[in-house]
Amino acid sequence: MKSEREIYLDNSATTQVDPRVKKAMDKYLIKEYGNPGSFNTVGLRAKNALESARHKIAEMLNAHKREIVFTGGGTESINLAIKGVARCNKSKGKHIIISKTEHHAVTETCNYLERYEEFEITRLNVDKYGRVLPETLEKAIRKDTILVSIMYANNEIGTINGIKSLVKVAHKHGVLFHTDACQAAGFLDINVKNLGVDLMTLNSSKIYGPKGVGLLYIKRATPIHPIIHGGGQEWKMRSGTENVSGIVGFAKALEICQEEQEQETKRLTELRDYLIRELLKIPKTVLNGHPTERLPNNINISFIDIEGEAILLYMNDQGICASSGSACTSTTLDPSHVITALGVPYEVAHGSVRFSLGRFTTKEGLDKLISILPGIVQRLRKISPINIDMKEIEAKINR
Amino acid sequence: MKSEREIYLDNSATTQVDPRVKKAMDKYLIKEYGNPGSFNTVGLRAKNALESARHKIAEMLNAHKREIVFTGGGTESINLAIKGVARCNKSKGKHIIISKTEHHAVTETCNYLERYEEFEITRLNVDKYGRVLPETLEKAIRKDTILVSIMYANNEIGTINGIKSLVKVAHKHGVLFHTDACQAAGFLDINVKNLGVDLMTLNSSKIYGPKGVGLLYIKRATPIHPIIHGGGQEWKMRSGTENVSGIVGFAKALEICQEEQEQETKRLTELRDYLIRELLKIPKTVLNGHPTERLPNNINISFIDIEGEAILLYMNDQGICASSGSACTSTTLDPSHVITALGVPYEVAHGSVRFSLGRFTTKEGLDKLISILPGIVQRLRKISPINIDMKEIEAKINR
Repeated sequence: MKSEREIYLDNSATTQVDPRVKKAMDKYLIKEYGNPGSFNTVGLRAKNALESARHKIAEMLNAHKREIVFTGGGTESINLAIKGVARCNKSKGKHIIISKTEHHAVTETCNYLERYEEFEITRLNVDKYGRVLPETLEKAIRKDTILVSIMYANNEIGTINGIKSLVKVAHKHGVLFHTDACQAAGFLDINVKNLGVDLMTLNSSKIYGPKGVGLLYIKRATPIHPIIHGGGQEWKMRSGTENVSGIVGFAKALEICQEEQEQETKRLTELRDYLIRELLKIPKTVLNGHPTERLPNNINISFIDIEGEAILLYMNDQGICASSGSACTSTTLDPSHVITALGVPYEVAHGSVRFSLGRFTTKEGLDKLISILPGIVQRLRKISPINIDMKEIEAKINR
Repeated sequence: MKSEREIYLDNSATTQVDPRVKKAMDKYLIKEYGNPGSFNTVGLRAKNALESARHKIAEMLNAHKREIVFTGGGTESINLAIKGVARCNKSKGKHIIISKTEHHAVTETCNYLERYEEFEITRLNVDKYGRVLPETLEKAIRKDTILVSIMYANNEIGTINGIKSLVKVAHKHGVLFHTDACQAAGFLDINVKNLGVDLMTLNSSKIYGPKGVGLLYIKRATPIHPIIHGGGQEWKMRSGTENVSGIVGFAKALEICQEEQEQETKRLTELRDYLIRELLKIPKTVLNGHPTERLPNNINISFIDIEGEAILLYMNDQGICASSGSACTSTTLDPSHVITALGVPYEVAHGSVRFSLGRFTTKEGLDKLISILPGIVQRLRKISPINIDMKEIEAKINR
């Protein structure tokens, strides 16, 4: 079957559910199906499963269980963090700071608040690697700033932000700090006390758990409104019958990630650096993002003179699944707002391809890619009407 | 094992996932795990599964696929319908009409809009059976009314509203109509063209599908804002990676419900009426809700002189799982707002118990309940300090 031959290098878009996760979930669909809010044995067993998952996750984050709010996914968590804090604190101020490389869940939420609820949004520049510098944040903070939301690691280029330093700057001015850590979990430290964050978003479907489940860590006493009202589940912060099987799966997924983090980070970093080295041997290529301060599973390369989409199509025909930028906006042909924010030329942004490795990626798979890709690039360049001087590109990048 | 001996009569709180549904879902966790937004074969197969589920559901509702927005559950759908319409139409007016017997997802959403966004909410009285009468709605509509939200069938007492007539009243005045049809699906007509509604909420976890999935039907050209922003999934109405396995399961669950609706309605109506007849033989009992215009699976009975919670505990010890009112608020001891809205005395509201039948309910199970319950009631009445004259209760109910 075709699916078994595919080499999946789109793990930043979503991951396969780990069989160990599925096994943990199965019980809570048919056998233990109760509503955790029901006052009977079937309900109470569901409640126990839910609270045990919450307890386990709280321990992994070094948080209290009352600080864990399960949601329907990363995007919902981000909406809850930003809108919830904005609406609850608007009497204090209506200024929010984000970076230019945030996920659309952050940018579109802020666009809405700006357009319809009279908030002011500052979108911070990043350095040429995609990092937000503490001094950039410092300069942007105003008296009426109520929230900073900066991602832990970028979903497109894998660049890791120095969250601890950024949090310190925000807290010096008494401003709340949210981080979107969807891509960081499994690789980086997500101990909320170490990071110092007030709010942190995690997503199950990026860490080999089921889709449709996420969480928002909310430090105790953080002033925030819910965005979904009803029966008062999740400490009154997110109403609706809890997705018990999904949450149990999420907890199991995070547990596996934590257990295997060290060895998996080592394994993937080696594979990543191997692939980067090999792909940069192809003429007229540029690595986007930071050479070392990047996620162990992220490779983002621009092939000058060609559209990234064209490369994807040809690779796809040969069973290699990668992506250009974020899955959420893959249907538009606009160049990625993340690559653009790096200050690279338009031509670089247009030719970018993301290869995101994962738990089931093997060196054999990468070798297949390495054997196929130069030919694809060569063929596409032959039919490309563009032929940009690489020195010009390099000058623009390094200016 | 204990769970196999339990008689589950709490199907209005949540239902077991049907094994046929689980089978349909399984494929989309490990084997077909793609992100529908990804531009590669794995993603496209997930996209196809998603769109095929959407198409199937649209057909069942007699809607267009662009009118189906998948969400994280019934509560989220209701929040989207009410807040989305409210925020988008506030320049036209800020008056919303609901009934006094709505689910907390409706009442709490409206409370929030009233408290924080300066909307005015009218909460309609119901008749002694729990029905909203068209003339009651007619009188409440004002020039600045923008939305009516009235449930199709009540989750606690099973009373069915005449949605078609209510929609006609709203539309006569140019007002949008949303109905919470979470309890109706599987038993009543959910053809949106027949009903005439502008918005309709359905939930997977009440119809033998997985938890954490729901949908909002939004008639084309209905003015509405999203409440969750991001990558623009679901026709830009609900961002976030789609829960493919959950949505596939939801579609399968609805399909089974539709196929089996006629025979299951007949079977459950007979079981319901049998149980009602038998339980009303217990002295000092009152049936809450309408004798016939009620869901085939709902029995709500008050046992005078006793707390409903006490009956539940004793039944639970003998392996019978029922509930008092809504699962969402089962942890408070306040009498149900639904039973209270019927105008019944406080004593009736306090002694109410809901038995909700389902696909896996058998006559044998009900016979066990019938053999056990009179003894429980008798024991509890013996230790109850209360002894109300039944004539007094009846006079109050019929006044």
